[in-house]
Parts: sequence; structure tokens; C-alpha cells
Amino acid sequence: MAENDAWIKRVTPELAPPSLGDNTADVDRLVKGLRQRLGGKNVRVDFSLVKRLSRELRVHDYCVRGAVYRDGDCWRLIDVFDGKESGAVYGLSLDLGSSTLVLRMVALTSGETLDEISFNNPQIEIGADILTRIHFAGQGGGLSKLQALVLDELNRQIGNLAEENGVARRSIVGMTVAGNTTMTHLFLGLDPHWICREPYIPVVNRPDLVNARELGIQINPEAPVLVFPNVGSYFGGDLIAGILASKMTEHEGVSFLVDVGTNAEVVIGNRDWLMACAGAAGPALESGVADMGMMAAPGVIDSVVIDPDTAAFTVGTIPSRGTSTATQDRGPIGICGSGLIDLVSELFLTGMVDLMGKFVPDRCGELLVEMDGIGHLMVVPAEASGSGEPLTLSQIDIDGLIRSKAAMYTILTTISRTVSIPFGDIGRFFVAGTFGSYINPRSAINIGMIPDLPLETYVSLGNTSLSGATMALLGVDAQRSLFHIRDQITYLELNVNQEFMNLFSAAKFLPHTDRSLFPSVKRLVE
Amino acid sequence: MAENDAWIKRVTPELAPPSLGDNTADVDRLVKGLRQRLGGKNVRVDFSLVKRLSRELRVHDYCVRGAVYRDGDCWRLIDVFDGKESGAVYGLSLDLGSSTLVLRMVALTSGETLDEISFNNPQIEIGADILTRIHFAGQGGGLSKLQALVLDELNRQIGNLAEENGVARRSIVGMTVAGNTTMTHLFLGLDPHWICREPYIPVVNRPDLVNARELGIQINPEAPVLVFPNVGSYFGGDLIAGILASKMTEHEGVSFLVDVGTNAEVVIGNRDWLMACAGAAGPALESGVADMGMMAAPGVIDSVVIDPDTAAFTVGTIPSRGTSTATQDRGPIGICGSGLIDLVSELFLTGMVDLMGKFVPDRCGELLVEMDGIGHLMVVPAEASGSGEPLTLSQIDIDGLIRSKAAMYTILTTISRTVSIPFGDIGRFFVAGTFGSYINPRSAINIGMIPDLPLETYVSLGNTSLSGATMALLGVDAQRSLFHIRDQITYLELNVNQEFMNLFSAAKFLPHTDRSLFPSVKRLVE
Repeated sequence: MAENDAWIKRVTPELAPPSLGDNTADVDRLVKGLRQRLGGKNVRVDFSLVKRLSRELRVHDYCVRGAVYRDGDCWRLIDVFDGKESGAVYGLSLDLGSSTLVLRMVALTSGETLDEISFNNPQIEIGADILTRIHFAGQGGGLSKLQALVLDELNRQIGNLAEENGVARRSIVGMTVAGNTTMTHLFLGLDPHWICREPYIPVVNRPDLVNARELGIQINPEAPVLVFPNVGSYFGGDLIAGILASKMTEHEGVSFLVDVGTNAEVVIGNRDWLMACAGAAGPALESGVADMGMMAAPGVIDSVVIDPDTAAFTVGTIPSRGTSTATQDRGPIGICGSGLIDLVSELFLTGMVDLMGKFVPDRCGELLVEMDGIGHLMVVPAEASGSGEPLTLSQIDIDGLIRSKAAMYTILTTISRTVSIPFGDIGRFFVAGTFGSYINPRSAINIGMIPDLPLETYVSLGNTSLSGATMALLGVDAQRSLFHIRDQITYLELNVNQEFMNLFSAAKFLPHTDRSLFPSVKRLVE
Repeated sequence: MAENDAWIKRVTPELAPPSLGDNTADVDRLVKGLRQRLGGKNVRVDFSLVKRLSRELRVHDYCVRGAVYRDGDCWRLIDVFDGKESGAVYGLSLDLGSSTLVLRMVALTSGETLDEISFNNPQIEIGADILTRIHFAGQGGGLSKLQALVLDELNRQIGNLAEENGVARRSIVGMTVAGNTTMTHLFLGLDPHWICREPYIPVVNRPDLVNARELGIQINPEAPVLVFPNVGSYFGGDLIAGILASKMTEHEGVSFLVDVGTNAEVVIGNRDWLMACAGAAGPALESGVADMGMMAAPGVIDSVVIDPDTAAFTVGTIPSRGTSTATQDRGPIGICGSGLIDLVSELFLTGMVDLMGKFVPDRCGELLVEMDGIGHLMVVPAEASGSGEPLTLSQIDIDGLIRSKAAMYTILTTISRTVSIPFGDIGRFFVAGTFGSYINPRSAINIGMIPDLPLETYVSLGNTSLSGATMALLGVDAQRSLFHIRDQITYLELNVNQEFMNLFSAAKFLPHTDRSLFPSVKRLVE
């Protein structure tokens, strides 16, 4: 983080106390001192601060530190602190997910992360899916309730985070928030009514800065809050944060960025252009489809290896963070998207499912049982599972996964054809989100979900919503980039027409009807 | 008013309703439309507006007019109105006097004045003088009470003004306020404690723009309110407005500007430099000293002629505005500063008072009566006065006036010597305020209050606080000028040292001990 790129700065002005020879007013005296430290740029002081500045300056004998933030061509004062103390200042970046919020506390002077916590979005009690929340917002008091739910919980968590790190709320002087368009609207108390109704218009694409006081966030009342812009109802600030975090717009080479959540969001581009689209490819990959499907969490299977000779399953689970392996000792409790991809890939490579994704009874042997007339494959028997229940994979689960992977591959094909960039010209394929952290690209290629590119092309970025938000918290260059990204994106409306359906049908095989598209898989299978 | 100089503009954007082909958000759609009309400059939308814009746009089928104001390098949205109506927008300029407030309503599109009213400052109930109000502000709840007094009355008067002119409060979209430093602080709810205590430091010299909502002024909530800056505790925005209104900084020739209120405030300068000072020269000239002294108002004597042969008094009174002459028919009820100056000038020219300002019994004859051991001159006998009481001028009244006029002349001499500009080099001598509207420069020269310059040098400007505020309401050039004026002023601290006292003593004669300074008076007397 370059000092002269900082969005928020701590500044220690040299202030002479007032005298008959210099009767400059208190506020103007402070502004003058700050300007001298800020290269002469104008420093503006909001009216709500003016009321208490004289007292603050006098209490500290005119020895103060100021916190300021850049707003266009000028700086704005956030607060002043006792100049005799260290006066460290902090910022928060928030990944505002519809299921989970991840909150990071950053020391603004060093750019270092102090702490990070994640917690459930309490709006889940209204509805797990976004449409339910939008409808609820339209009822009397609904919007206020949804906003209060998330803000109250956020304030509680900020309180905990501050206390545990010995940080005063007042010294938290800035915040950035990246979330999808609906979550952002609910966070700001804006009516999402038109987001889900044709022609799908948000209230705002680029919210202006708003201070914490106006929003009701209990940090420094004058702390600026930057809420990430969106491109439209279905392309939110979380993905813009992802593009920012991937740095794909800094290079000449063309990259893909894929973020799989409730939707699969796909971006292709380079420093000159960006195209994006989104499609319903996600549920099976996140948690929604498989019987034993779960969100990635400790104790959940995220990798599977099947011995081709013995058909023995070796499953890996996500370890508990920082604690003992008690959860793992209890055995796996479910499977996440990446585990599911691994599993189906292995089943395919070992011949236990065929190229249409159907169980091959001969190969599955006694692992295949029928329940309610549907084939189920025993993955973890009851005695080895953490829940005491067997973990099984049904034919329906596989069919669901195949639909999701086919949708993903079709979207990728469609968007790359639209921009006339063949897969072979893709330099980097970024995978964002929790899903991206655990996915094994080899397996995803094996089932034909993603193109058959060299494995090193695939880069997992983790929580890019959070890392993009953190970049914007720290630097104005990043803020400029994100607005540039927003303005640059061409959004491709996916027409589910005959061509799309043909591509989709062809992709509903393992890995694809056209095996020449997946030479590496062909080699493995043969 | 040049259109491209306007601070506040009414803009009619061309907005296409949302469609699948253009899913720009409501706020961004409006911003884009406004930008097109504003030469591509950025338009910012405050968060409090964002919440209701979607509804407004949809109610009016995207056919709206916007009101915007310039803020540095960008425009800010104030509100949107039904595009099918004329959508005239209005502004208010306020002269925030410690005794009287004058409020003007202006049509912003034409710059024309719609109406103007004046009313008492209700803070008078706390104390007529400023020091009493400052002390009251320091008591528990005092500051809030003082602020509420003036804001409540202002809101009431705005309501009347709006109603009488058929103007909706919401269409009043901007305001400017010029007042002295203490009045400005009380208006903004800022503690004036240090204004009257060494080293006399205001809270703020240059208040940033604040919106009506934050201040509690009941016009459009997002209307920007520009409160004039001050140079220090004793040199306020009212005088900066005066300098602006006089246009003295636009010329190479050096001008004087004098504003007589509670203090006499004096500015000298041209387009390259400005020096200002203030001194206690006012009370006798405003209302405070003479027994019969009053503020200039209908029925108050503002001019006096004494027939040198018959010693007959002819008095002129200020007519009632717009109504019949009922008040004048009732006879005069007091005398204002300019009347007092006329009176003493005439008494001096007719030999009824001598060069020390003492009554000459031989010349006064039976008009001079002794009351409580002090000489009183009958100006209007009881039967001719509007109050039924005789209007008399006492020796104490004259002594007070002479002290005031001597102070004024000494201040003018001191400041002109400081800048080495002899009186003869003064091109224009502007006299601001109500006092300036009624003063007869000939009489003021006769008593030695102002320099003996050609009469055409003296220009009465009326209420420059109000006219300066109105200029700033209409144009950003005027706003730039006023901040430039503020930054340019050198404030001369009047040292009441031996030299000042010597000058003052010499000026305590009619017109002066050095008669050569007043050749025109010498000619008149001889």
C-alpha cells in the first residue's frame, strides 16, 4: 500500500494555539494545519463535526491527530484524536453475502489484517433465497426489518471484534462493503422491488459515499462507507470486487473469472474490455442439490479418491479452524460442491458411472443400493460418518450435478464465442469464492465442467468479495479501478435459445459428447 | 445573472423509461440525464435522496425536472419535481442582523426578487446586545434556546412568505445567510464562548455548505445553505457581503466602505488589497445614545433643517411603507442617527452649538430649557409630536454624538494612514446599512464625522448584507469573490494608544481642531 494512494490517512498537523497575533478560528486552524500535511489539497469539515471541534481542540491543547479521507479532489475530516496517543486508526471490509457475512478489521496505517470473522446473515430467518426477501421487503415494514436484521447483527459483531482486539469503535474510521445488488439494497434500506421485476432495475448502480452515522453503523459516526457499485440487478458489487481482486483488468492476456454461488457468474476480459454474464448453474455446486450436500465447512467432505483396483474410497474433510480435530474424529458429516465434483470425477474415471452419468451396477457392486426405487451409492457408511447416518450419492444427485456442470460449460462456451476468444487463448482462469478454494480443477475438467486447459491456468482466489473490498478500503487507485471496471463491463444477457439448448445438451455428458474438447480426460479414461 | 454562472439550476433531463435494453438503475439514469444537460460534469446524489428517487421517477413516468447546485467541481442534486409542471424554483437570502432579520425571496430562474420582509430578531428577548447573548449561550441549554428562537421565527416567517407568494416550501431550494460572527454562530448552533474572550477565536471562519434539513430550516430538506464566512470575531459575513455588494474589489481606484451598526466597521481597499477594522463608534448613530434616539423606522425624524434667520425647525420623518401617512400625521416619535447628525450639523451652522458642541444660550433662546440640571433643546414640542411627549436634545446627547463621530473620524484617519492613502485619493466612499440609506453626507461632513470629500464621492448602498447574500444566492462567481474577499482582508487591530487618543481628542470638535481638514465647512460657517 503506497502512502500516497491511501483512501484514509492519519495526519498530525502542527497547530499553534490561538493568539492575538493569529486569531484564525478553531476549525480553520485545523484545516490549515491538515492542508499543510496533505500537499495543499482542500480539507472539508462536515457540519456535524464543526459543532464539537472547538472542544476537542481545546481539551487536547491543540495537539491532535486527524483522520481524513479522500473524496474526489479534496479530503474530508473524519475525526480528531488526542495527539499525545498513538492514534492508530482501523477500517472494516465486509463481504455481504446472502448466507454469510465476512468481516475483516484492518489497521489502516499498515494495511495489515488484525482479525476476521464470519457469521450468518440473519435475514435467513426471513428466507434463505433472495426472492423471498425481496417479496418480504414489499410488505409493510418489511424493508426496515430486513435492514435492521443485518445492521443489528453487524453492529453486534463489530462490537465483539473491536472488544477482542482492544480497538475503540471511534477509531474505526472507514468501511467498504461488497455484496450482490439485492443484498446491497437491503443493507442501504433501498427498496429492491424492481430488481426482480422486468426490466430489472435497481434503485442505484453507484451509491455515493455515505457516512456510518447516516447508515446506523456503530463505528466512528463520520466514517465514510463505500458500498460497491453494481452493473445491474444480477451483477453485483461482490463480483466487481472479484474482478478487482483478480487484477484481470491489469493484463493484456485474456482471463476468465468464475464465481459460483447461488448463481454462476462468469467474466471474461483483459485490460481493454470485459464481458460478464450470470446463469443458474450453482445450486448443485454450493449445497442445494445432493442429499448429503452441504456448504463447505469443517467436517464436510471436500475431496474424494477411489482406488481403481480396490474401489476403496478415501475421503478428505475440511479441518476445523484453529481447534482440535474433534470434528474430523467424528467422521464426515456431508459433502460440499468440490467434494461432489471429485466424487463424480472418480466414479467416472473408475467406470462406476458411465458417460451419461448413470451408475454402472457391475462396477459399483454392493456399494449400489436401491432406496425408494432410486439407485444410491454408499460413500460413507453410517458407522464411519459423523452424523451416524450413511452418506450416499443418488442418481438424482448426479443428474443435478451434471445439469449444473453442463450449464457452466455452456455459459463459458457461449461467452467465449460471443467475444471470439477460443478457450485455448485464455491465459488465466480464476475461480473465486469458497467453492473456488476447495475445487480440484483436474476433477472439474474430468466431468467437463470447465475447459481442458493446463492445470496451472486455474487459480483459486478465495473470498474475492472480501479481498476486493479490502483493496478499496486501503487505496483510491483500487477505488478508481472498481468504478472503471463497473463502467467497462458489457453484460451479456443469456438467451436460452435453440443454440444454447443444443450446447447444453451436448455438455450433459461426461465430459462432453465431443471428446476432442477434453483430450486430457480422453487420455485418463483410456 | 449569466446562466452558466448560476449556483442553483433547474434542469430537465431527457430520460427514457427503463427497458430490457437499458437496465440502468433509477438514480444512475437520472444522473446520466442530468449530466448530459450539465456539460458532462459529475452529479452527486446524497444518500437521503436515493431512498425516495425511484418512487419519484416512477410517479412522474420518468418525466421530471431536477434542481441541482454547484459544489466545487461537481453538481449535487437537491430534488426532482414533476416534469409536466413549470417547476419554478426559489431561493432565500437572509440578512441575519442582531436586531432585525431581512428575508428576501428570489425566483432562481430569473434572479428577480419576489418579496422581502423584515422582522425582529427574537433573541432580543434574551438581550439586546450581543455580549448578553454570548453569556446566555454558555448557560445550560442557552445555546439551543438562542438557536431555536431565531430558527423558529425564521421558519414561521418563511411559511408566511411562501404562502403569501403561492410558493411551496419544497420549491425553495437554496439559501444564503449573511450576519456578524456571533449571530452566525448562534444560527448554526455553534458555541460563541471564545468569540468575546481573548484571543477572540470563533469556532469557524468558513462554514462549509450545510443542508436545510441538518439546520432545521423548513424549506426543501436538501437545499444547500451557504452561511457567509467571517474574518474573525469582530468582522463578520455581513461586512463581507457588503464588500461584495459594493464591488469595491473590482476596481483599481481605492474605496472606503463604512457600515454603522452596533460597531462602526470600516474597509479600505481596491482590487489588489483590502484592510478592515472595527470600532465602537456606533451607538449614538444607531439609537442608543440620545434620549429621543430610535432605530430608523416610519415616523422617526431622519432630516432636520433650521432656518438660520428664524431658527424655525423643519423636520422630515421616514414615511410608512406602502400605507397611508397616518404615522406622519401623528407627528414624529423620535430621531434616528441620520436625523441626529442633521440636527447637530444645523445647530452648529446656525451657531446654536459651538465648536465644542456646547449649547450657546444666546442663540438658542427659549428653546433651551434646563431639566435635572442639564441643558435640553426643544426640537418638537409635545403638541406636535406623535407620542404626546416633547422631543428634546440634551447636552449629553450631543456629547455622545461627538464621541461617536470623533471615533469614526479617528478610525478613518488611522486606517488611511496605515495604508498611506490620503483621503484625497479615495474615489468612492460607500455607506452601507439603514444608517447609510438616510444619512446626509453634507451634514456628516459638517460635524466632522467623515472626510471633506466631494459629495458625489459618497454612495449609499442600502442593505448590503442582504444584497451581498442575494448575489451569492444567484451566482458562483459571487461566491468565489466572497471567499476571495475573506482571504484577502488584512484586519487592523485598533490600538487605542497615545497617538489614537491624540487623534480622537482633536476630532472631538465641530468639525475638528484642524479646520483646514474641512475647507467646505469653513466656507459654510464663514
